[in-house]
Amino acid sequence: GRCYRIATIPGDGIGKEVVPEGIRVLDRAGALFGFSFEWDQLPWSCEYYSVHGEMMPADGLDAIRNHDAIFLGAVGFPGVPDHISLWGLLLPIRRRFEQYVNLRPIRLMPGMNTPLANVAPGSIDFVIVRENTEGEYSDQGSILAEGTAQETVVQHSVFTRRGVDRLLDYGFRLAEKRDGKLCWATKSNGIFVAMPYWDARAELIAGRFPGVETSRYHIDILAAHFVRDPGRFDVVVASNLMGDILSDLGAACTGTIGVAPSANLNPAGEYPSMFEPVHGSAPDIFGRNIANPIGQIWSGAMMLEQLGEAEAARAVMDAIECVMIEGPRTPDMGGRESTQAVGKAIAEAM
Amino acid sequence: GRCYRIATIPGDGIGKEVVPEGIRVLDRAGALFGFSFEWDQLPWSCEYYSVHGEMMPADGLDAIRNHDAIFLGAVGFPGVPDHISLWGLLLPIRRRFEQYVNLRPIRLMPGMNTPLANVAPGSIDFVIVRENTEGEYSDQGSILAEGTAQETVVQHSVFTRRGVDRLLDYGFRLAEKRDGKLCWATKSNGIFVAMPYWDARAELIAGRFPGVETSRYHIDILAAHFVRDPGRFDVVVASNLMGDILSDLGAACTGTIGVAPSANLNPAGEYPSMFEPVHGSAPDIFGRNIANPIGQIWSGAMMLEQLGEAEAARAVMDAIECVMIEGPRTPDMGGRESTQAVGKAIAEAM
Ligand SMILES: CC(C)[C@H](C(=O)O)[C@@H](O)C(=O)O
Ligand SMILES: CC(C)[C@H](C(=O)O)[C@@H](O)C(=O)O
Repeated sequence: GRCYRIATIPGDGIGKEVVPEGIRVLDRAGALFGFSFEWDQLPWSCEYYSVHGEMMPADGLDAIRNHDAIFLGAVGFPGVPDHISLWGLLLPIRRRFEQYVNLRPIRLMPGMNTPLANVAPGSIDFVIVRENTEGEYSDQGSILAEGTAQETVVQHSVFTRRGVDRLLDYGFRLAEKRDGKLCWATKSNGIFVAMPYWDARAELIAGRFPGVETSRYHIDILAAHFVRDPGRFDVVVASNLMGDILSDLGAACTGTIGVAPSANLNPAGEYPSMFEPVHGSAPDIFGRNIANPIGQIWSGAMMLEQLGEAEAARAVMDAIECVMIEGPRTPDMGGRESTQAVGKAIAEAM
Repeated sequence: GRCYRIATIPGDGIGKEVVPEGIRVLDRAGALFGFSFEWDQLPWSCEYYSVHGEMMPADGLDAIRNHDAIFLGAVGFPGVPDHISLWGLLLPIRRRFEQYVNLRPIRLMPGMNTPLANVAPGSIDFVIVRENTEGEYSDQGSILAEGTAQETVVQHSVFTRRGVDRLLDYGFRLAEKRDGKLCWATKSNGIFVAMPYWDARAELIAGRFPGVETSRYHIDILAAHFVRDPGRFDVVVASNLMGDILSDLGAACTGTIGVAPSANLNPAGEYPSMFEPVHGSAPDIFGRNIANPIGQIWSGAMMLEQLGEAEAARAVMDAIECVMIEGPRTPDMGGRESTQAVGKAIAEAM
């Protein structure tokens, strides 16, 4: 049968608790649908950093570049600054492996507690296509007159035609497969070089997809519509920073912020893609076996999809929905069950 | 009695319909509380542009720099690009008059339709203190290899110590007068020069305000909390772009996006401050007398506050709340009354 080699990075905190549940469910999916996994466990984490002085070995990326995918838990530990934990592991993986699409499904699932009034399960179902390798996320910039009253900080955002076009192209193709509607977020009335550029590229590329209905939103209004009228969206394309904000906002609107998944995709498959839940390492609850594994498992379903195992992916999603409705539930969802109990229930529901 | 000279810029579209209602209510407030206004009407607008080739005369800013305040409706007309209508009028006023605070109250008012479940009037009451003169809003940048496949767009955000510090200082003073809680939004795990700088300045300035409880949020999580738990906030300080997004999002959460006010403040009063509703010129409904004047009138209440007429400001706010509950209402709020009917009702309710 088919065997997938997965670079497995549980990372820190609850990452170490939820990744095993993801593995449990995916192994079960493989058994049911005729494939298997080889889970290469990598200890890269803040713990690893405290011993080795780096988040991963210098040749770490080379060691995993031929894997079929990367399955990540969460990284981060109090006392280890972000520029170490993120720019030493997460962001280099996204960038070096050209995972230029950060895909975030926003769905109102049955049994989830949305803070919005008057929305029913099924009424919100869209996807955010976020740029994941360039743009506002940048360590480029300078501080002039440092340490004086005249101190001036310049931060550079960098957008390339290649980077913008390939993201938009992915978004349009996705819209063709979904409901044929795409909108993009910019702020061309304030950010006066890069955002009109985005608009121009989007309008140009839209011409190649006559079947897709497009609209342009200023990011401020778009954020407002996520709350006022989230049912109108299908595919939402945005830059790195804007997509980051919209992703968490969208997840909050559907009450799924603790269970939301994400896929960092290299669509052409030249490099492995990475799948990780949106939640962090949550050191405050680590060790108590109460972390909700659904975000990790849902990310696993996205990994199956990318590996071409669409049927297995759907089976995992159905099992997640079933457990969301019927339980068992971890404390964050109002239950009293453990991480493992939820993972097992999802595996069994399949 | 005291007389205030107000530079009055109705602008385009419904700006021309709602500004007269603002004037009506503020004149009434003056009559009741012993002061008066001189409303200097200025035709600066896209219409003006279509005749004169500029949004305002070259010496426009000099002509109003000694006014007590600026009362603006809305600018914008289909076909006139943003870089003309905004960078030709709105943004130069904000910048040249050092209106470095954009103040946006976020309040759940009685009678307003919030999209959030489980929130009661009074449970949301905070204020966004947005930087308004520098930061991400910028026309600085460059396009390398223009027109080729290697095209690379660099956009510069510029933050100064003076700009960041004075905004934070305003926010902390405001928090002292309110509930003593301040949070600020950054994205220091992604935007690696400017955002850690913001954090450092905020932490430093916090030391001068030991009575204020502070917290730092990444902008993505903060946006999520606006939806999940908006009751926790008191004063929210943010950069130009982040504050812009949060302002519309906050207004959407309280169902007030069509009636939200804003104040562009030069706190020391070296230059006039500007007061404008958040909504735009809405060309689609212009001419039908159905525009909601509440945003303009609420902005007028903020102007009274800034002019030192706190009692009159409160009276206007009470009258607005009264009409929000009892009507009359314009169509956007489910009623059938005209712009003028609502303006008159608020004037009378005082
Ligand atoms: C019109 C636009 C430039 C403006 C801004 O982004 O500042 C508006 O959205 C606002 O918030 O006042
Ligand atoms: C941790 C952080 C750098 C990251 C991001 O902003 O990309 C996270 O918020 C995410 O969305 O994956």
